[in-house]
Amino acid sequence: MVLELKAPEEPTVTALLPLVPTFLSYILSFIFVGIYWNNHHHLFQAVEQVDGRILWANLHLLFWLSLTPFVTAWMGANNFAAWPVALYGVDLLLAGVAYFILVRTLLARHGEDSVLASAVNRDFKGKISVVIYATAVPLAFVSTWLAGGLYVLVAIIWLIPDRRIEDRLNP
Amino acid sequence: MVLELKAPEEPTVTALLPLVPTFLSYILSFIFVGIYWNNHHHLFQAVEQVDGRILWANLHLLFWLSLTPFVTAWMGANNFAAWPVALYGVDLLLAGVAYFILVRTLLARHGEDSVLASAVNRDFKGKISVVIYATAVPLAFVSTWLAGGLYVLVAIIWLIPDRRIEDRLNP
Amino acid sequence: MVLELKAPEEPTVTALLPLVPTFLSYILSFIFVGIYWNNHHHLFQAVEQVDGRILWANLHLLFWLSLTPFVTAWMGANNFAAWPVALYGVDLLLAGVAYFILVRTLLARHGEDSVLASAVNRDFKGKISVVIYATAVPLAFVSTWLAGGLYVLVAIIWLIPDRRIEDRLNP
Amino acid sequence: MVLELKAPEEPTVTALLPLVPTFLSYILSFIFVGIYWNNHHHLFQAVEQVDGRILWANLHLLFWLSLTPFVTAWMGANNFAAWPVALYGVDLLLAGVAYFILVRTLLARHGEDSVLASAVNRDFKGKISVVIYATAVPLAFVSTWLAGGLYVLVAIIWLIPDRRIEDRLNP
Repeated sequence: MVLELKAPEEPTVTALLPLVPTFLSYILSFIFVGIYWNNHHHLFQAVEQVDGRILWANLHLLFWLSLTPFVTAWMGANNFAAWPVALYGVDLLLAGVAYFILVRTLLARHGEDSVLASAVNRDFKGKISVVIYATAVPLAFVSTWLAGGLYVLVAIIWLIPDRRIEDRLNP
Repeated sequence: MVLELKAPEEPTVTALLPLVPTFLSYILSFIFVGIYWNNHHHLFQAVEQVDGRILWANLHLLFWLSLTPFVTAWMGANNFAAWPVALYGVDLLLAGVAYFILVRTLLARHGEDSVLASAVNRDFKGKISVVIYATAVPLAFVSTWLAGGLYVLVAIIWLIPDRRIEDRLNP
Repeated sequence: MVLELKAPEEPTVTALLPLVPTFLSYILSFIFVGIYWNNHHHLFQAVEQVDGRILWANLHLLFWLSLTPFVTAWMGANNFAAWPVALYGVDLLLAGVAYFILVRTLLARHGEDSVLASAVNRDFKGKISVVIYATAVPLAFVSTWLAGGLYVLVAIIWLIPDRRIEDRLNP
Repeated sequence: MVLELKAPEEPTVTALLPLVPTFLSYILSFIFVGIYWNNHHHLFQAVEQVDGRILWANLHLLFWLSLTPFVTAWMGANNFAAWPVALYGVDLLLAGVAYFILVRTLLARHGEDSVLASAVNRDFKGKISVVIYATAVPLAFVSTWLAGGLYVLVAIIWLIPDRRIEDRLNP
């Protein structure tokens, strides 16, 4: 994740102001890519076997993450307008689906009794994220604030340590 | 492989449309680089010894892959015109040849009885890819659709799990 | 850390001159990123356990470091004007704070008696860096030379081998 | 090493022609960075201990290598004019000196009897490269062909397997 911000040619705070939406988009994207980075680290520590199917599932996730700088820049450059906010959500949604597929592919290879299976558990956060993204995308055309708020909600769900949120939501 | 797409300044679907050819080129290139990534992973798991010759064969492959963003961008920016489509194929062809050389260099070092030799087997896909690329490049000046179709065919050959296609083509 | 310098279109020394401030900024930033790279290497050699908290503390540091090319380019393009010099210091300051948090997070996980705890020791340099940055940022509006000099001072503190400076400052 | 070539907007061979000097510069730089990559791989396989001094010597080498895309682009964009060709050589020279320092730093740490010391041997190629670069830089103002030829000569020296050239030059 690289910040694609052209440095303004004037050394004033005013010259920085138009970059604020892009900077906010960047923070959000940095957190989302960070979530995948962390989950990926967690996941692959329990991985014992890798085959072609797993490598492709992994590249599939990487593909949607590689689009993040583009959708981030479009959303930032257009001040969180409806279409860019929706497309940003579509990218998050497809990355979320790709992560879901990656987890299933890993489970299929490692079996129900593996360390991996117990580490992944029910992957509650992964599933709820996909549901929230799918809800947020159409809502972008009603209110970009609502859609953006739902993206932030997903980020918060992941930033809260596992036990607390799972205990609260699955008593 | 990085998507070199400048975010449009207008938040409309119409503003995205001119980027579609570049996006399609990007998907194709992502898959090709992914194929090399996966094969490389597969190959180097069986590698036991590395010498200068192998490092250079590897860098030679990397060189042609490093040109992928350029040929991808040229093909996308010019809506799949003949010359860019041909040059794209030339790059794929030379990457394919470089991969072939890398495999031979590794085999020369590891010997006929090594784990590597049995892992590589006859490298059927590698050879057929080079033949298809060599056919597709001149065909780009007859029909860019035909050339493009052959590039996609190579991608499909690699995406199908090994056993199935090898069984079908080498009964 | 990548030098974002557009090559001038004229092959003369005169054409290079306007790039000198950006080049100087780049050298400074390269050293700062190098300091974190080295410290990070030193730190993670003693790390035995990694959890979500540590991964996020690490990403937090990475976030501020990822802004370095932007603040470097802004400072260089504006010939070390007050606001860019101050913002550059803010980024260094926040990276310094993030490093401090990362060290605390690692210590909390590894305990007082760990190899890590003895390797980190009192993290004197980390603390003094944050203090100097916090002093330098407001001073940028008084004298950019003074602020820049303090940034260079921090770099020097880190470049001097540990024992010498610690012995001198903590007799 | 990334090819910083903007894809031309016209799908013709004519549109590619102005990029040829940049492409040739890129090939040369790719080989030089490849030489360091390979030597580095060779060198660090024999490294047993790493300290701050070694990390900084390594970063120092990385610094000059990080300038390669800039000097490559300048030389390519100006059709191998004298100043860019000279500056290109200065960067190669300083990278060569940095490599020399890195080798000495590693030797100082590992001792005369280490595996590293016998792997490095007399580092003949490293020394002769620095001498050739230092000769080529001023010659760029006499003849850019001569300077360029000497750069290519260094590349060839490194591409020839070790034993052959060392046997020939040190009988």
